[in-house]
Amino acid sequence: MCGTTEQGHAIRLSSSSSENVSSDARSNGATRNLSSDAVVNLDHGDPTIFETYWRNMGDKCTVMIPGYQSLSYFADTKSLCWFLEPKLEESIKNLHNVVGNAVVDDNYIVVGTGSSQLIQAALYALSPPDQPKPASIVCAAPYYSCYKEMAEFLRSELYKWEGDAHTFDKEGPYIEMVTSPNNPDGVCREAVVKKDGGKRVHDLAYYWPQYTPITAPADYDIMLFTVSKCTGHAGSRLGWALVKDKEVAKKMVTFMTISTIGVSKESQHRAAKILEVISNGCKDLKSPNGNIIDNFFHYGQSILTKRWDKLRNTLKHSRVFSLAKYPVKYCHFTQDLSEAHPAFAWIKSKDKIDDCEKLFRGHKVLTRSGKRFGSDPKYVRVSMVSKEEDFELFIKRLSSLNNLNIISAA
Amino acid sequence: MCGTTEQGHAIRLSSSSSENVSSDARSNGATRNLSSDAVVNLDHGDPTIFETYWRNMGDKCTVMIPGYQSLSYFADTKSLCWFLEPKLEESIKNLHNVVGNAVVDDNYIVVGTGSSQLIQAALYALSPPDQPKPASIVCAAPYYSCYKEMAEFLRSELYKWEGDAHTFDKEGPYIEMVTSPNNPDGVCREAVVKKDGGKRVHDLAYYWPQYTPITAPADYDIMLFTVSKCTGHAGSRLGWALVKDKEVAKKMVTFMTISTIGVSKESQHRAAKILEVISNGCKDLKSPNGNIIDNFFHYGQSILTKRWDKLRNTLKHSRVFSLAKYPVKYCHFTQDLSEAHPAFAWIKSKDKIDDCEKLFRGHKVLTRSGKRFGSDPKYVRVSMVSKEEDFELFIKRLSSLNNLNIISAA
Repeated sequence: MCGTTEQGHAIRLSSSSSENVSSDARSNGATRNLSSDAVVNLDHGDPTIFETYWRNMGDKCTVMIPGYQSLSYFADTKSLCWFLEPKLEESIKNLHNVVGNAVVDDNYIVVGTGSSQLIQAALYALSPPDQPKPASIVCAAPYYSCYKEMAEFLRSELYKWEGDAHTFDKEGPYIEMVTSPNNPDGVCREAVVKKDGGKRVHDLAYYWPQYTPITAPADYDIMLFTVSKCTGHAGSRLGWALVKDKEVAKKMVTFMTISTIGVSKESQHRAAKILEVISNGCKDLKSPNGNIIDNFFHYGQSILTKRWDKLRNTLKHSRVFSLAKYPVKYCHFTQDLSEAHPAFAWIKSKDKIDDCEKLFRGHKVLTRSGKRFGSDPKYVRVSMVSKEEDFELFIKRLSSLNNLNIISAA
Repeated sequence: MCGTTEQGHAIRLSSSSSENVSSDARSNGATRNLSSDAVVNLDHGDPTIFETYWRNMGDKCTVMIPGYQSLSYFADTKSLCWFLEPKLEESIKNLHNVVGNAVVDDNYIVVGTGSSQLIQAALYALSPPDQPKPASIVCAAPYYSCYKEMAEFLRSELYKWEGDAHTFDKEGPYIEMVTSPNNPDGVCREAVVKKDGGKRVHDLAYYWPQYTPITAPADYDIMLFTVSKCTGHAGSRLGWALVKDKEVAKKMVTFMTISTIGVSKESQHRAAKILEVISNGCKDLKSPNGNIIDNFFHYGQSILTKRWDKLRNTLKHSRVFSLAKYPVKYCHFTQDLSEAHPAFAWIKSKDKIDDCEKLFRGHKVLTRSGKRFGSDPKYVRVSMVSKEEDFELFIKRLSSLNNLNIISAA
């Protein structure tokens, strides 16, 4: 998901030609009959994969909001983050404690309109306001394509996008974005730049058990999460930051206040409920009568494992594409060994195919080129969290591509 | 409502000392027993005045959102504003047509996280991207205090705050914010700068019948509205822009996409319902069996009229404060003559009192100084849309101030 004109254009173009996304939000969940020549849009990471789970939950997560609720801008004026609903704060803390993916104690929680807004709030909060030169923003390539856009679109004098952290050698203050697991390639990461004067923002949007083994509770200065990737509720535009330093948290709240005077109370009420239901499902699992299919993360892991197995099978003997392997690790949440099943596949074309995105596009599969991630156009990022029909059509096209003599055709 | 650290600090300080706001969002609507020495915070325009109306509506505006709804980022990929819920678009158009306050036909609707985000989207869309110098942002003083903060906080090279439009004389591209009715002083306005190369953004947040007579449907290039002021649902963070030019609308959508990847679907669903109920109430009124108390705008006008009458009575013979009069105009919505009853009172201190905000603060009433609006510190802006108890306590304090020999005491 991203925001350039190019991207916005891509969203519209692809959908108007394929209509494979337009009814997602309003569909009744019935299988859409994608025609065999439909364009499959796997460019963005719209997490509709979990829809069946939420349908099967029936009324358990339904929220009712009466007309008189949440009229005020304020949620809790005694809180540093005055627009954060106390019930959401509680649900966030509970979930992290149950999953064990982040240390929440002694952290301030700042809620945002998705983690996108919180990334910008963090850049604002960490950039020295009184320096003649902007702070450098870097991230190890391949990096999430939206960081560059967010850092550049307003031409701020506070910060400047400097690209790949591996080759960064400027003096002065810098902020390193550390995405773990990484978008686009699913690799777990640590910071790369080892210089004085640096700050780090850990974007942990995908550090949840359905995507990757939870090896330890993360404990960094600023950690970002979002319901879009955690639960699949991308339409809610709801993210949160765990922030150690009070002054940084305050500046992030200032950003949110000037930018949007807080965050939708409706989204907060709903997210509070959904996170609570997930936490309870996880706790139940640990009891003798717990049902594994009630556990959201087990469901998520299971469906993603199936897709990844199918993808790896399809590419097993491919002369055209390759796919990296992830190490097997012990997950403290599932209490089992497993490898990662990321939300995106990072596919590389072999030999003489220089533009992998173009190749896929020619076969009516929209992906995002490696170029957009500061990487090689031999790579593409492909969403693994689409609706089932889109995924199946993608696998079908991929099989055909494997059977063609692509090398000469490209 | 505003966002500087100073402001954020003021919000917290005032509330922790008075606790007169903290429970707004979660209170059960019972009268709070404000102690006679409580601090009354009328600095911000939190529109809790309408809470009783919404409580009396019972379940009419209740929305139910099941767990599987709105998972996707997308609402309608065929629409220019791909994250705008079609139901909300319809409700917005209906309401403007029923009220007659804006021309909606042939306009693009862009939804935002409150009108704050749309103001920034408009500045982004209207600033030439390829100029060596930033576009000038101006507004006639007294101007809404947040424009300056929004234009300055990220130190963008695209635009620069240049203050009062009356004294603006720079060359090059400029954007004039036209707020009508104006915040802080409630006056209906037209653009002030008459130069080439200018663009205008009409902030019409208060152009609704409860605040001001609707004299004609507004028909400008960019018009901004928000549910915060229209219905009092400030917690929803939901605004919309009516935009004539397709390319400008597209750039605003790009801004929203990079900034927050769209707008909360929950807020949109709820706003769609609430605006629909209001529109239906207005239509019913025109039928023989229509009930005036079901009509939101009549209710709003009636309660604001009572407050303004009380305020004017209190200040009628004041030697300390003065208050401007608004002209009587014919309102096409109410089909009656009336004067404005703005959401804020713009009170001026007389004679030797130089700092009106300080005077009020000394008497435990928090207001916003004229200085913040690019005006004289003899003025303060006072919210007229607070809860009843706060308003009553304010009137009580104001009466005492009138009876004191303030001139010598100040």
